[in-house]
Amino acid sequence: MHPFASRRSDSVAALGEIGLISAIRGWLGSAAPPPPFGMGDDCAVVPGSRRRQLLKVDPVVFTRHFDARVPPRAVGAKLLKRNLSDIAAMGGRPGCAVVALLLDPQVSVAWLEQFHRGLAACARHYGVALVGGAVGQAPGTLSASLTLLGQAPARLLTRRGARAGDRIYVTGVLGNSLASGHHLSFRPRLAEGAWCARQPAVRAMMDLSDGLAKDLPALTPAGLEAAVLARALPRRARADVRAALSDGEDHELLLAVDRQRDPASFAAAWQKAFPRTRLTCIGRFVRRGQLPPEALRLDDYHGFEHLRA
Amino acid sequence: MHPFASRRSDSVAALGEIGLISAIRGWLGSAAPPPPFGMGDDCAVVPGSRRRQLLKVDPVVFTRHFDARVPPRAVGAKLLKRNLSDIAAMGGRPGCAVVALLLDPQVSVAWLEQFHRGLAACARHYGVALVGGAVGQAPGTLSASLTLLGQAPARLLTRRGARAGDRIYVTGVLGNSLASGHHLSFRPRLAEGAWCARQPAVRAMMDLSDGLAKDLPALTPAGLEAAVLARALPRRARADVRAALSDGEDHELLLAVDRQRDPASFAAAWQKAFPRTRLTCIGRFVRRGQLPPEALRLDDYHGFEHLRA
Repeated sequence: MHPFASRRSDSVAALGEIGLISAIRGWLGSAAPPPPFGMGDDCAVVPGSRRRQLLKVDPVVFTRHFDARVPPRAVGAKLLKRNLSDIAAMGGRPGCAVVALLLDPQVSVAWLEQFHRGLAACARHYGVALVGGAVGQAPGTLSASLTLLGQAPARLLTRRGARAGDRIYVTGVLGNSLASGHHLSFRPRLAEGAWCARQPAVRAMMDLSDGLAKDLPALTPAGLEAAVLARALPRRARADVRAALSDGEDHELLLAVDRQRDPASFAAAWQKAFPRTRLTCIGRFVRRGQLPPEALRLDDYHGFEHLRA
Repeated sequence: MHPFASRRSDSVAALGEIGLISAIRGWLGSAAPPPPFGMGDDCAVVPGSRRRQLLKVDPVVFTRHFDARVPPRAVGAKLLKRNLSDIAAMGGRPGCAVVALLLDPQVSVAWLEQFHRGLAACARHYGVALVGGAVGQAPGTLSASLTLLGQAPARLLTRRGARAGDRIYVTGVLGNSLASGHHLSFRPRLAEGAWCARQPAVRAMMDLSDGLAKDLPALTPAGLEAAVLARALPRRARADVRAALSDGEDHELLLAVDRQRDPASFAAAWQKAFPRTRLTCIGRFVRRGQLPPEALRLDDYHGFEHLRA
């Protein structure tokens, strides 16, 4: 069987990223445990680990996640930070990592040197040990996949747990990540994520990587809808509402907070812990069919799709 | 800086795989701990893990590790077994895994389905939980990198520890892995590896993946040489001595056994534990300059090189 389809309708581009991931889950069957011990959250919780561990893999690919204008040191740092952001989204602490490189033989040694120096500087900054790797040859390709092992917090904070009436918060500002350089300069919200895991009022959390419109459904329990107000969205300079909902690579935290928790005291506690990190309530979860007229129709927006022909 | 070099002399192909890995170690500096807690063995030992863990990543790449003639189920199984073989080489037990896919949008869904079904069947067979993954788009590419987390044995068995006079053993038969189909049908030597970790006489061990001539130096301590006899090499059908030394993808275990251990009783113990797995003494370690004339000159042979233009 040839790995490349002769018709587009038989290809992964036709299936799309979300369709593919759902199909993979079906194909793997019982070999893939249900979340949090498997696919479906920002990280997997390692099954059977006594002090719970988190495991995550994410790649960077030339022409998709970076191009020739991006300094290679920044590419190396981005590779690690993408994964750190997912550890942060479960309130975890990073541990060690391995990297699989796929290289065309013509890849520049000078470029790789700067890439690795950037990766190493970032790893030292966040206390990550780079413990191993693999090098494979792949014609026409330059990519690196990093797998990060981390420590889960005492209370596991996953994407599941939001209830009707819970408020939805986001850290930082959204949109225009690519043009502004945020996709390279972002700081993974590790301290903020760990703090959230210690707040019983924070019931669910995730990393915003593909755009709010695409990511928020993963935090929305069955039977509920997310009522998000356009005017509440914290937007980056030169980001309109569509950009804030769809651009991707925000790498901010998205939180569901218990409706019982007093908003003013929650804001004050946050402000005290993170005076320099903005936290914004952007809406709340409501029962299906009770979406107020002023709420955004998130279905009308699209996030970043990873498989496009 | 452009990631692709305009002159071959500036490319990774000119540096070669071994040169590149050594360079990477230098670039990473203190971010990369020394082995066994870092690069340089079959797996990394996770730093600071109480009950020690092993971490390993290895990819399969279309046109390099498989082609259109290989059934996709076998590719999925091979991806996992490559990594299992490295866990086996440290006497470990596999735990869970994550997979990073890099796909051209034109990759066939039917192919991916069979690939994942093969991977899942193999994972169930070896008790590996597939807990997560990532999908990235990469033009012209089809590859999968699997990261495997495992449990180390009570006694850590690494590539280091051989001494002068120690005998060198290999499991199974060598060479002709590609044409014979062994590169797909091999069984990772997990039980054998775990047994070796319980034998104090086994001082060092590794997985044979790039050919004996290329791999054996990694088991050879400074100041020693490996005296291997051509006539002792266990060869697969249609494999000559050069094939047995250079072909790669044997995925057999290479052992250094204490010279004090009686060869007959060691062979008998092995035979009792693994009546169907061949174990062959192929030579011994001698002090540098004391290579007997009948020993093979391993430098005259080359193993599998991963970066060739």
